[in-house]
Amino acid sequence: MSNPFARLSLNTMTTKNWTLRQAAEATAAAGLPAIGVWRDRVAESGVELSAKILRDNGLRVSSLCRGGFLTGVDDGPAAVDDNRRAIDEAATLGAPELVMVMGGIPDRDLVGARARMAQRLADLVPYAAERDVRLALEPLHPVFCADRAVICTLTQALELAAPHPARSVGVVVDTFHVWWDPALAGAIAAAGAQGRISSFQICDWLVPMAADPLVSRGMMGDGVIDFAAIGALVRDAGYVGDVEVEIFNEAVWATDGSTVLETMKQRYHDLVWPTLAG
Amino acid sequence: MSNPFARLSLNTMTTKNWTLRQAAEATAAAGLPAIGVWRDRVAESGVELSAKILRDNGLRVSSLCRGGFLTGVDDGPAAVDDNRRAIDEAATLGAPELVMVMGGIPDRDLVGARARMAQRLADLVPYAAERDVRLALEPLHPVFCADRAVICTLTQALELAAPHPARSVGVVVDTFHVWWDPALAGAIAAAGAQGRISSFQICDWLVPMAADPLVSRGMMGDGVIDFAAIGALVRDAGYVGDVEVEIFNEAVWATDGSTVLETMKQRYHDLVWPTLAG
Repeated sequence: MSNPFARLSLNTMTTKNWTLRQAAEATAAAGLPAIGVWRDRVAESGVELSAKILRDNGLRVSSLCRGGFLTGVDDGPAAVDDNRRAIDEAATLGAPELVMVMGGIPDRDLVGARARMAQRLADLVPYAAERDVRLALEPLHPVFCADRAVICTLTQALELAAPHPARSVGVVVDTFHVWWDPALAGAIAAAGAQGRISSFQICDWLVPMAADPLVSRGMMGDGVIDFAAIGALVRDAGYVGDVEVEIFNEAVWATDGSTVLETMKQRYHDLVWPTLAG
Repeated sequence: MSNPFARLSLNTMTTKNWTLRQAAEATAAAGLPAIGVWRDRVAESGVELSAKILRDNGLRVSSLCRGGFLTGVDDGPAAVDDNRRAIDEAATLGAPELVMVMGGIPDRDLVGARARMAQRLADLVPYAAERDVRLALEPLHPVFCADRAVICTLTQALELAAPHPARSVGVVVDTFHVWWDPALAGAIAAAGAQGRISSFQICDWLVPMAADPLVSRGMMGDGVIDFAAIGALVRDAGYVGDVEVEIFNEAVWATDGSTVLETMKQRYHDLVWPTLAG
């Protein structure tokens, strides 16, 4: 039987209180091959040392989180510059995918915000392509449309990606953000057929929600998401990349990181891996 | 110039602490022609007396809220029975539209819940049609998919309605629930072309959200929704029916109902009516 954990990746947000070195060493010690890295963790050590830490621990970098926030009215050039830096960081880290959370609405003009986002994405694509970094557009749950992400569905992410080559612009499938979508099956199949699935991120939708939706993500099995159903869609779409566990949750963050890692491995083994392997 | 309030309707949830008689008398005194009624207010007086109160105040009943909750595993027959009673109530009240909030997921099987909902809707359609009551399918914001409504988009509501005649099954456009939807323009146009817009409900999306999303609705103008943009879509889709203000909000509920009514009229006059009239 193949190694159940051959595609499992720890996103550093799940063990938020660990430094990059702590997360990398624990991930390697737990027998995981990959890690998804947030820029704040990289900034602590600097990008060169971060790259060395990840290499020394033999880890793939499944993604760098995150670029984006490209919807502002006045800060467009500064935001594009910051995204260029994020692309450079991804290239240095050997992260093939830069997760893009595109930003909310600075005013009431949702149509305008979406138009600015599309234009600034187009501005960034050549720069990313030259560095072999793919911009991975992440649709967030519509509860975040106002303050974080005007991309609300996978279908919409694919429409935004369509003018660009699949090797330069992909999409993220995050169970927490997409599980409710009545058009999900068709959208995942289309993303796979286009070769655009950049990342499969997993965590659960808790009921009741936390007071702040941002930290209402749960460990797989603690909420209502059917991981077998969504896992089958992703598998049948041909995705063979890493599976990143990214959990924003105060209780998880208050738990010892090693315990979180063990729980995450167990839940992945029980709830996600059987379908992906199937 | 035509009366700006000729289509404005107070939903009883907005003035939650009023009895049906208080709400009806205040609505009529404020010069509004219509009221949207929740079943709990009707139950307090009984349906016959409620109908008389509404008639005596010369009010149209823009909708009865609500039927639905048809996704359960074991309580299907009881839920269908309760919906038949809701249809009877709507007929007695002279409410042409029964708003349907279809229910959440009792387990992790979203696909199964949606299938049960579709079957039970089909069971109810002939009963509703015989009584000249339209079942108005309401997509709720996806934040409520788990606990309240597995219909998450207007497009999905139209697909569910498609097998049934437009005079028997319609859809609700509620700004709070649909404002984020990247497919909104096409869906509203399609709903209009099919003659299926049962109700246009308005309130705002607050930022930050209330800790409980259910009561995070705001008075028009207090949040981020572009009422001119959505109003134009509804107008261009040919909708000429009532515009119901339905707000779940602790601060609004703690305010004197007459003050709420005056604020609601002013905001409607300033933010919504110009577009609908245009």
